[in-house]
Amino acid sequence: MASYTFEDFTPGRRFEFEKRTMTADAIIAFAREFDPQPMHLDEAAGRASILGGLAASGWHTSAVMMRMLYEAYINGSTSEGSPGVDLMEWKRPVLAGDTLGGHCAVLEARVSRSRPEIGIVRLRAEVTNQRDEVVAVCEYINMMRLAATGAGHAHD
Amino acid sequence: MASYTFEDFTPGRRFEFEKRTMTADAIIAFAREFDPQPMHLDEAAGRASILGGLAASGWHTSAVMMRMLYEAYINGSTSEGSPGVDLMEWKRPVLAGDTLGGHCAVLEARVSRSRPEIGIVRLRAEVTNQRDEVVAVCEYINMMRLAATGAGHAHD
Repeated sequence: MASYTFEDFTPGRRFEFEKRTMTADAIIAFAREFDPQPMHLDEAAGRASILGGLAASGWHTSAVMMRMLYEAYINGSTSEGSPGVDLMEWKRPVLAGDTLGGHCAVLEARVSRSRPEIGIVRLRAEVTNQRDEVVAVCEYINMMRLAATGAGHAHD
Repeated sequence: MASYTFEDFTPGRRFEFEKRTMTADAIIAFAREFDPQPMHLDEAAGRASILGGLAASGWHTSAVMMRMLYEAYINGSTSEGSPGVDLMEWKRPVLAGDTLGGHCAVLEARVSRSRPEIGIVRLRAEVTNQRDEVVAVCEYINMMRLAATGAGHAHD
């Protein structure tokens, strides 16, 4: 298992996602708890909707993306979490049976001025399906501790 | 049950959220599936983190917000879903036992030029805890069908 620190997050660096298949059962279980709209609960209702089939809630796709980020680089890293997301786009339906993958890439990385032991990393995640179509995009901040607190490198 | 159409979404209109308590069991179940970082799985690890206790994944708070939006106005409405989120901020930790509430408010609403039977509504949701502190903010688009397709009102 890799153990990443702030220093590993150089602009352009990519982390690949493991593939995950969205089962009908998982789509329905998430929807029952968090987003019980008919097209997320029922195949016929999904087919009758603009989504074209039993479709995952956008928030389900986002949660699965979170799991893929965890497996790609967060697990064992010095991550201190995220204050939020600048952008979350659900670009195409995610239907039962779709297999998701994709990657995230570092957009920028700088050391916090107020907390010089912490780096502020901005990343862009792209979630794709089995046809390599982008189904979701997210740009977000990840706070990461430095491996060693260097002096004189504060940029913010 | 209210049944809202695009015409109901006038700027400034608010929809209140039902209150929901975040149990330790629900926080841990979500984290096991989607975000298995120690502070989301274990009380002691949470207390040792900057979050100060067993803390919900930000994506869990967002999913619960989705459920509150569903109950507040989406259920039975002419919603056609969302292309995404402009902003999702997790402003304060959500800890086991916290009771969430809040509201969403309409920021703007206009009829689609390319699909005049559809309105584009931008909303801002604020999720609060039992101390009325804002724990999460989300600004997002909701597409809503018009009750009747009017002519000559396309603004986009």
